[in-house]
Amino acid sequence: MDNNKISDRVIERLPKYYRYLKDLCNSQIDRVSSKTISNALNITASQVRQDLSHFGGFGQTGVGYDVEFLKNSMQEILGINKRHNAIVIGGGRIGQALISYKGFADENVFVKAVFDVETEHLSGVLGVEVYNASELEDYLFKNHVDIAIISVQKEYAEQMAKRVVDAGVKSIWNFAPTDLYFGGGVVCENINMSESLMRLIYKTKSL
Amino acid sequence: MDNNKISDRVIERLPKYYRYLKDLCNSQIDRVSSKTISNALNITASQVRQDLSHFGGFGQTGVGYDVEFLKNSMQEILGINKRHNAIVIGGGRIGQALISYKGFADENVFVKAVFDVETEHLSGVLGVEVYNASELEDYLFKNHVDIAIISVQKEYAEQMAKRVVDAGVKSIWNFAPTDLYFGGGVVCENINMSESLMRLIYKTKSL
Repeated sequence: MDNNKISDRVIERLPKYYRYLKDLCNSQIDRVSSKTISNALNITASQVRQDLSHFGGFGQTGVGYDVEFLKNSMQEILGINKRHNAIVIGGGRIGQALISYKGFADENVFVKAVFDVETEHLSGVLGVEVYNASELEDYLFKNHVDIAIISVQKEYAEQMAKRVVDAGVKSIWNFAPTDLYFGGGVVCENINMSESLMRLIYKTKSL
Repeated sequence: MDNNKISDRVIERLPKYYRYLKDLCNSQIDRVSSKTISNALNITASQVRQDLSHFGGFGQTGVGYDVEFLKNSMQEILGINKRHNAIVIGGGRIGQALISYKGFADENVFVKAVFDVETEHLSGVLGVEVYNASELEDYLFKNHVDIAIISVQKEYAEQMAKRVVDAGVKSIWNFAPTDLYFGGGVVCENINMSESLMRLIYKTKSL
Protein backbone atom coordinates (compact mmCIF):
# COMPACT_ATOMS: atom_id res chain seq x y z
CA MET A 1 0.00 0.00 0.00
CA ASP A 2 1.28 3.45 -0.90
CA ASN A 3 -0.24 6.02 1.44
CA ASN A 4 0.74 8.86 -0.89
CA LYS A 5 -1.80 7.66 -3.41
CA ILE A 6 -4.76 7.71 -1.04
CA SER A 7 -6.85 10.84 -1.57
CA ASP A 8 -8.71 12.68 1.17
CA ARG A 9 -11.98 11.54 -0.37
CA VAL A 10 -11.00 7.88 0.03
CA ILE A 11 -9.83 8.53 3.60
CA GLU A 12 -13.25 10.06 4.30
CA ARG A 13 -14.90 6.79 3.30
CA LEU A 14 -12.54 4.31 5.02
CA PRO A 15 -14.23 4.53 8.44
CA LYS A 16 -17.61 4.01 6.79
CA TYR A 17 -16.40 0.75 5.24
CA TYR A 18 -14.96 -0.37 8.54
CA ARG A 19 -18.09 0.39 10.51
CA TYR A 20 -20.28 -1.40 7.98
CA LEU A 21 -18.01 -4.45 7.88
CA LYS A 22 -18.07 -4.60 11.67
CA ASP A 23 -21.87 -4.59 11.61
CA LEU A 24 -21.83 -7.44 9.07
CA CYS A 25 -19.40 -9.39 11.25
CA ASN A 26 -21.63 -8.89 14.26
CA SER A 27 -24.55 -10.21 12.20
CA GLN A 28 -22.41 -13.22 11.26
CA ILE A 29 -22.45 -12.48 7.54
CA ASP A 30 -19.41 -14.06 5.86
CA ARG A 31 -19.33 -12.56 2.39
CA VAL A 32 -20.45 -9.30 0.83
CA SER A 33 -20.54 -7.94 -2.73
CA SER A 34 -19.46 -4.45 -3.74
CA LYS A 35 -23.09 -3.91 -4.80
CA THR A 36 -24.36 -4.62 -1.27
CA ILE A 37 -21.72 -2.33 0.27
CA SER A 38 -22.66 0.27 -2.34
CA ASN A 39 -26.35 0.19 -1.37
CA ALA A 40 -25.64 0.36 2.33
CA LEU A 41 -23.24 3.30 2.14
CA ASN A 42 -24.74 5.38 -0.66
CA ILE A 43 -21.55 5.02 -2.73
CA THR A 44 -21.49 3.60 -6.30
CA ALA A 45 -20.36 -0.04 -6.60
CA SER A 46 -17.52 0.92 -8.92
CA GLN A 47 -16.33 3.48 -6.38
CA VAL A 48 -16.39 0.77 -3.70
CA ARG A 49 -14.28 -1.55 -5.88
CA GLN A 50 -11.88 1.26 -6.72
CA ASP A 51 -11.55 2.35 -3.08
CA LEU A 52 -10.91 -1.16 -1.82
CA SER A 53 -8.42 -1.85 -4.61
CA HIS A 54 -6.17 0.84 -3.08
CA PHE A 55 -5.71 -1.54 -0.20
CA GLY A 56 -4.82 -4.65 -2.09
CA GLY A 57 -8.15 -5.58 -3.68
CA PHE A 58 -9.54 -8.29 -1.46
CA GLY A 59 -12.58 -9.08 -3.66
CA GLN A 60 -13.17 -12.02 -5.99
CA THR A 61 -15.52 -11.77 -8.97
CA GLY A 62 -18.79 -13.61 -8.32
CA VAL A 63 -17.82 -14.44 -4.75
CA GLY A 64 -17.49 -11.00 -3.21
CA TYR A 65 -15.38 -9.97 -0.27
CA ASP A 66 -14.54 -12.06 2.79
CA VAL A 67 -16.14 -9.89 5.47
CA GLU A 68 -13.98 -10.80 8.44
CA PHE A 69 -10.74 -10.69 6.48
CA LEU A 70 -11.66 -7.32 4.98
CA LYS A 71 -12.75 -5.96 8.36
CA ASN A 72 -9.48 -7.03 9.96
CA SER A 73 -7.46 -5.60 7.09
CA MET A 74 -9.36 -2.34 7.32
CA GLN A 75 -8.74 -2.23 11.07
CA GLU A 76 -5.02 -2.60 10.45
CA ILE A 77 -5.03 -0.04 7.62
CA LEU A 78 -6.82 2.46 9.84
CA GLY A 79 -4.38 1.72 12.67
CA ILE A 80 -7.12 0.97 15.20
CA ASN A 81 -5.82 -2.55 15.85
CA LYS A 82 -3.39 -0.88 18.26
CA ARG A 83 -4.30 0.72 21.56
CA HIS A 84 -4.19 4.54 21.73
CA ASN A 85 -4.01 6.56 24.91
CA ALA A 86 -5.87 9.86 24.97
CA ILE A 87 -6.20 12.80 27.31
CA VAL A 88 -9.01 15.34 27.41
CA ILE A 89 -8.17 19.01 27.87
CA GLY A 90 -11.19 20.89 29.15
CA GLY A 91 -13.63 19.18 31.47
CA GLY A 92 -16.80 21.06 30.52
CA ARG A 93 -19.98 19.44 29.24
CA ILE A 94 -18.49 18.32 25.93
CA GLY A 95 -15.30 17.07 27.56
CA GLN A 96 -17.28 15.10 30.13
CA ALA A 97 -19.53 13.62 27.45
CA LEU A 98 -16.46 12.48 25.52
CA ILE A 99 -14.87 10.93 28.60
CA SER A 100 -18.06 9.01 29.34
CA TYR A 101 -18.58 7.83 25.77
CA LYS A 102 -17.91 4.10 25.68
CA GLY A 103 -17.90 3.86 21.89
CA PHE A 104 -14.28 4.93 21.52
CA ALA A 105 -13.15 1.59 22.94
CA ASP A 106 -14.28 0.19 19.56
CA GLU A 107 -11.46 2.23 18.02
CA ASN A 108 -9.09 1.09 20.75
CA VAL A 109 -8.93 4.61 22.17
CA PHE A 110 -8.89 5.06 25.93
CA VAL A 111 -9.11 8.33 27.80
CA LYS A 112 -6.59 8.21 30.66
CA ALA A 113 -6.79 11.69 32.15
CA VAL A 114 -8.59 15.03 32.02
CA PHE A 115 -7.02 18.47 32.52
CA ASP A 116 -8.78 21.66 33.51
CA VAL A 117 -8.03 24.93 35.27
CA GLU A 118 -10.69 23.97 37.79
CA THR A 119 -10.72 20.33 38.79
CA GLU A 120 -13.00 20.08 41.82
CA HIS A 121 -16.18 19.37 39.85
CA LEU A 122 -14.44 16.55 37.99
CA SER A 123 -12.89 14.54 40.81
CA GLY A 124 -14.26 11.09 41.26
CA VAL A 125 -17.11 11.41 38.78
CA LEU A 126 -15.60 10.27 35.50
CA GLY A 127 -13.39 7.30 36.22
CA VAL A 128 -10.26 8.94 34.81
CA GLU A 129 -7.38 10.78 36.47
CA VAL A 130 -8.00 14.49 36.99
CA TYR A 131 -5.20 17.06 36.80
CA ASN A 132 -4.82 20.78 36.92
CA ALA A 133 -3.90 22.21 33.52
CA SER A 134 -0.60 23.38 35.02
CA GLU A 135 0.47 19.73 35.33
CA LEU A 136 0.06 19.05 31.60
CA GLU A 137 3.74 19.07 30.55
CA ASP A 138 4.74 17.04 33.57
CA TYR A 139 2.10 14.41 32.78
CA LEU A 140 3.13 14.25 29.11
CA PHE A 141 6.76 13.82 30.13
CA LYS A 142 5.86 10.84 32.31
CA ASN A 143 3.10 9.20 30.25
CA HIS A 144 2.79 8.17 26.64
CA VAL A 145 -0.13 10.01 25.07
CA ASP A 146 -1.17 9.40 21.46
CA ILE A 147 -4.16 11.73 21.17
CA ALA A 148 -5.02 15.02 22.86
CA ILE A 149 -8.72 15.87 22.78
CA ILE A 150 -9.24 19.63 22.98
CA SER A 151 -12.58 20.69 24.44
CA VAL A 152 -11.76 24.07 25.93
CA GLN A 153 -13.27 27.41 24.97
CA LYS A 154 -12.35 28.83 21.60
CA GLU A 155 -9.90 31.42 22.93
CA TYR A 156 -7.77 28.79 24.73
CA ALA A 157 -7.83 26.08 22.07
CA GLU A 158 -4.76 27.09 20.08
CA GLN A 159 -2.60 27.69 23.12
CA MET A 160 -3.53 24.37 24.78
CA ALA A 161 -3.02 22.48 21.53
CA LYS A 162 0.37 24.13 21.09
CA ARG A 163 1.40 22.99 24.59
CA VAL A 164 0.65 19.34 23.87
CA VAL A 165 2.26 19.53 20.43
CA ASP A 166 5.39 21.08 21.96
CA ALA A 167 5.43 18.16 24.39
CA GLY A 168 5.45 15.69 21.49
CA VAL A 169 1.80 14.70 20.92
CA LYS A 170 1.17 14.07 17.21
CA SER A 171 -2.65 13.81 17.10
CA ILE A 172 -5.04 16.60 18.03
CA TRP A 173 -8.77 16.00 18.08
CA ASN A 174 -10.33 19.42 18.37
CA PHE A 175 -13.87 20.15 19.55
CA ALA A 176 -13.35 23.86 20.21
CA PRO A 177 -15.24 26.03 17.72
CA THR A 178 -12.11 27.16 15.87
CA ASP A 179 -10.12 25.19 13.31
CA LEU A 180 -6.60 24.26 14.35
CA TYR A 181 -3.83 23.58 11.85
CA PHE A 182 -0.34 22.33 12.59
CA GLY A 183 2.28 21.55 10.02
CA GLY A 184 5.32 19.40 10.55
CA GLY A 185 4.12 15.96 11.40
CA VAL A 186 1.11 16.84 13.52
CA VAL A 187 -2.38 15.74 12.51
CA CYS A 188 -5.44 17.68 13.57
CA GLU A 189 -9.07 16.68 13.09
CA ASN A 190 -11.54 19.46 13.80
CA ILE A 191 -15.10 18.65 14.81
CA ASN A 192 -16.85 21.95 14.34
CA MET A 193 -20.43 21.57 15.48
CA SER A 194 -21.27 25.19 14.89
CA GLU A 195 -20.24 24.95 11.23
CA SER A 196 -22.20 21.76 10.76
CA LEU A 197 -25.27 23.48 12.19
CA MET A 198 -24.85 26.41 9.81
CA ARG A 199 -24.56 24.05 6.83
CA LEU A 200 -27.71 22.27 7.94
CA ILE A 201 -29.63 25.55 8.11
CA TYR A 202 -28.23 26.74 4.77
CA LYS A 203 -29.11 23.50 2.99
CA THR A 204 -32.61 23.46 4.47
CA LYS A 205 -33.15 27.05 3.39
CA SER A 206 -31.99 26.11 -0.14
CA LEU A 207 -34.40 23.16 -0.49
CA MET B 1 -27.85 34.18 -6.14
CA ASP B 2 -28.49 30.85 -7.81
CA ASN B 3 -28.28 28.09 -5.21
CA ASN B 4 -27.90 25.44 -7.91
CA LYS B 5 -24.46 26.77 -8.73
CA ILE B 6 -23.07 26.50 -5.21
CA SER B 7 -20.94 23.38 -4.85
CA ASP B 8 -20.64 21.37 -1.65
CA ARG B 9 -17.04 22.55 -1.31
CA VAL B 10 -18.16 26.18 -1.23
CA ILE B 11 -20.92 25.34 1.25
CA GLU B 12 -18.24 23.70 3.45
CA ARG B 13 -16.38 27.01 3.57
CA LEU B 14 -19.32 29.40 4.09
CA PRO B 15 -19.51 28.93 7.87
CA LYS B 16 -15.76 29.50 8.12
CA TYR B 17 -16.11 32.88 6.38
CA TYR B 18 -19.00 33.82 8.60
CA ARG B 19 -17.21 32.89 11.81
CA TYR B 20 -14.10 34.80 10.79
CA LEU B 21 -16.08 37.88 9.78
CA LYS B 22 -17.89 37.81 13.11
CA ASP B 23 -14.55 37.74 14.93
CA LEU B 24 -13.38 40.74 12.87
CA CYS B 25 -16.61 42.59 13.69
CA ASN B 26 -16.13 41.87 17.37
CA SER B 27 -12.59 43.27 17.08
CA GLN B 28 -14.07 46.37 15.41
CA ILE B 29 -12.21 45.86 12.15
CA ASP B 30 -14.06 47.60 9.30
CA ARG B 31 -12.41 46.31 6.14
CA VAL B 32 -10.61 43.14 5.13
CA SER B 33 -8.77 42.00 2.00
CA SER B 34 -9.16 38.60 0.36
CA LYS B 35 -5.47 38.07 1.19
CA THR B 36 -6.08 38.54 4.92
CA ILE B 37 -9.11 36.20 4.83
CA SER B 38 -6.97 33.75 2.87
CA ASN B 39 -4.22 33.72 5.51
CA ALA B 40 -6.64 33.32 8.39
CA LEU B 41 -8.59 30.44 6.88
CA ASN B 42 -5.88 28.50 5.01
CA ILE B 43 -7.65 29.07 1.68
CA THR B 44 -6.00 30.71 -1.36
CA ALA B 45 -6.91 34.36 -1.94
CA SER B 46 -8.23 33.58 -5.42
CA GLN B 47 -10.47 30.89 -3.93
CA VAL B 48 -11.76 33.43 -1.41
CA ARG B 49 -12.58 35.91 -4.20
CA GLN B 50 -14.21 33.18 -6.28
CA ASP B 51 -16.28 31.87 -3.33
CA LEU B 52 -17.49 35.30 -2.32
CA SER B 53 -18.32 36.21 -5.93
CA HIS B 54 -20.98 33.46 -5.86
CA PHE B 55 -22.84 35.65 -3.42
CA GLY B 56 -22.74 38.88 -5.33
CA GLY B 57 -19.06 39.91 -5.05
CA PHE B 58 -18.98 42.45 -2.26
CA GLY B 59 -15.29 43.32 -2.61
CA GLN B 60 -13.68 46.37 -4.21
CA THR B 61 -10.18 46.29 -5.68
CA GLY B 62 -7.67 48.02 -3.40
CA VAL B 63 -10.25 48.66 -0.71
CA GLY B 64 -11.24 45.13 0.26
CA TYR B 65 -14.50 43.96 1.74
CA ASP B 66 -16.76 45.86 4.11
CA VAL B 67 -16.64 43.49 7.11
CA GLU B 68 -19.99 44.25 8.69
CA PHE B 69 -21.85 44.30 5.39
CA LEU B 70 -20.26 41.03 4.32
CA LYS B 71 -20.94 39.43 7.72
CA ASN B 72 -24.59 40.45 7.58
CA SER B 73 -24.93 39.24 4.00
CA MET B 74 -23.32 35.94 4.94
CA GLN B 75 -25.69 35.61 7.90
CA GLU B 76 -28.63 36.08 5.56
CA ILE B 77 -27.20 33.71 2.95
CA LEU B 78 -26.71 31.04 5.60
CA GLY B 79 -30.21 31.62 6.92
CA ILE B 80 -29.07 32.19 10.51
CA ASN B 81 -30.58 35.66 10.66
CA LYS B 82 -33.86 33.89 11.47
CA ARG B 83 -34.63 32.06 14.70
CA HIS B 84 -34.74 28.25 14.55
CA ASN B 85 -36.42 26.04 17.12
CA ALA B 86 -34.76 22.72 17.88
CA ILE B 87 -35.56 19.63 19.91
CA VAL B 88 -33.11 17.05 21.21
CA ILE B 89 -34.01 13.38 20.98
CA GLY B 90 -31.96 11.36 23.43
CA GLY B 91 -30.98 12.89 26.77
CA GLY B 92 -27.74 11.02 27.37
CA ARG B 93 -24.35 12.68 27.89
CA ILE B 94 -24.06 14.03 24.36
CA GLY B 95 -27.67 15.21 24.30
CA GLN B 96 -27.22 16.98 27.63
CA ALA B 97 -23.98 18.59 26.47
CA LEU B 98 -25.73 19.90 23.36
CA ILE B 99 -28.65 21.28 25.37
CA SER B 100 -26.25 23.10 27.68
CA TYR B 101 -24.09 24.50 24.91
CA LYS B 102 -24.72 28.23 24.72
CA GLY B 103 -22.87 28.71 21.43
CA PHE B 104 -25.81 27.72 19.27
CA ALA B 105 -27.56 30.97 20.16
CA ASP B 106 -24.95 32.58 17.84
CA GLU B 107 -26.63 30.68 15.02
CA ASN B 108 -30.06 31.69 16.31
CA VAL B 109 -30.81 28.08 17.25
CA PHE B 110 -32.67 27.41 20.47
CA VAL B 111 -33.34 24.01 22.01
CA LYS B 112 -36.91 24.00 23.29
CA ALA B 113 -37.40 20.42 24.49
CA VAL B 114 -35.72 17.07 25.03
CA PHE B 115 -37.29 13.63 24.50
CA ASP B 116 -36.18 10.36 26.01
CA VAL B 117 -37.65 7.00 27.00
CA GLU B 118 -36.57 7.76 30.55
CA THR B 119 -37.08 11.32 31.66
CA GLU B 120 -36.58 11.35 35.42
CA HIS B 121 -32.85 12.12 35.31
CA LEU B 122 -33.50 15.09 33.00
CA SER B 123 -36.26 16.94 34.82
CA GLY B 124 -35.33 20.36 36.10
CA VAL B 125 -31.62 20.14 35.29
CA LEU B 126 -31.39 21.50 31.78
CA GLY B 127 -33.72 24.46 31.51
CA VAL B 128 -35.75 22.96 28.67
CA GLU B 129 -39.03 21.07 28.60
CA VAL B 130 -38.67 17.31 29.11
CA TYR B 131 -40.97 14.80 27.42
CA ASN B 132 -41.31 11.08 27.11
CA ALA B 133 -40.42 9.88 23.61
CA SER B 134 -44.01 8.65 23.24
CA GLU B 135 -45.15 12.29 23.22
CA LEU B 136 -43.01 13.22 20.21
CA GLU B 137 -45.71 13.31 17.51
CA ASP B 138 -48.09 15.16 19.77
CA TYR B 139 -45.44 17.79 20.53
CA LEU B 140 -44.56 18.20 16.85
CA PHE B 141 -48.23 18.63 15.99
CA LYS B 142 -48.58 21.45 18.51
CA ASN B 143 -45.18 23.17 18.17
CA HIS B 144 -43.16 24.43 15.23
CA VAL B 145 -39.82 22.64 15.17
CA ASP B 146 -37.16 23.47 12.56
CA ILE B 147 -34.38 21.12 13.62
CA ALA B 148 -34.39 17.71 15.32
CA ILE B 149 -31.10 16.81 17.00
CA ILE B 150 -30.68 13.04 17.19
CA SER B 151 -28.46 11.84 20.03
CA VAL B 152 -29.85 8.38 20.71
CA GLN B 153 -28.01 5.08 20.41
CA LYS B 154 -27.14 3.90 16.93
CA GLU B 155 -29.89 1.27 16.75
CA TYR B 156 -32.67 3.81 17.44
CA ALA B 157 -31.36 6.68 15.31
CA GLU B 158 -33.06 5.85 12.02
CA GLN B 159 -36.42 5.08 13.59
CA MET B 160 -36.47 8.27 15.68
CA ALA B 161 -35.37 10.39 12.72
CA LYS B 162 -38.10 8.82 10.59
CA ARG B 163 -40.70 9.74 13.20
CA VAL B 164 -39.75 13.42 13.17
CA VAL B 165 -39.49 13.47 9.37
CA ASP B 166 -42.95 11.89 9.10
CA ALA B 167 -44.21 14.63 11.38
CA GLY B 168 -42.87 17.28 8.99
CA VAL B 169 -39.42 18.24 10.32
CA LYS B 170 -37.08 19.10 7.44
CA SER B 171 -33.69 19.31 9.21
CA ILE B 172 -32.00 16.44 11.02
CA TRP B 173 -28.75 16.98 12.90
CA ASN B 174 -27.50 13.52 13.72
CA PHE B 175 -24.96 12.66 16.43
CA ALA B 176 -25.67 8.92 16.53
CA PRO B 177 -22.76 6.88 15.13
CA THR B 178 -24.59 5.93 11.93
CA ASP B 179 -25.13 8.07 8.86
CA LEU B 180 -28.72 8.99 8.11
CA TYR B 181 -29.94 9.86 4.62
CA PHE B 182 -33.35 11.13 3.67
CA GLY B 183 -34.43 12.08 0.17
CA GLY B 184 -37.38 14.23 -0.70
CA GLY B 185 -36.77 17.61 0.80
CA VAL B 186 -35.18 16.57 4.08
CA VAL B 187 -31.65 17.67 4.96
CA CYS B 188 -29.47 15.63 7.26
CA GLU B 189 -26.07 16.60 8.66
CA ASN B 190 -24.22 13.75 10.32
CA ILE B 191 -21.60 14.43 12.98
CA ASN B 192 -19.80 11.15 13.22
CA MET B 193 -17.22 11.39 15.98
CA SER B 194 -16.15 7.79 15.64
CA GLU B 195 -15.27 8.28 11.97
CA SER B 196 -13.38 11.46 12.71
CA LEU B 197 -11.38 9.61 15.35
CA MET B 198 -10.54 6.84 12.88
CA ARG B 199 -9.38 9.37 10.29
CA LEU B 200 -7.20 11.03 12.91
CA ILE B 201 -5.55 7.73 13.79
CA TYR B 202 -5.12 6.77 10.12
CA LYS B 203 -3.55 10.10 9.20
CA THR B 204 -1.20 9.98 12.19
CA LYS B 205 -0.16 6.45 11.28
CA SER B 206 0.52 7.62 7.72
CA LEU B 207 2.75 10.54 8.76
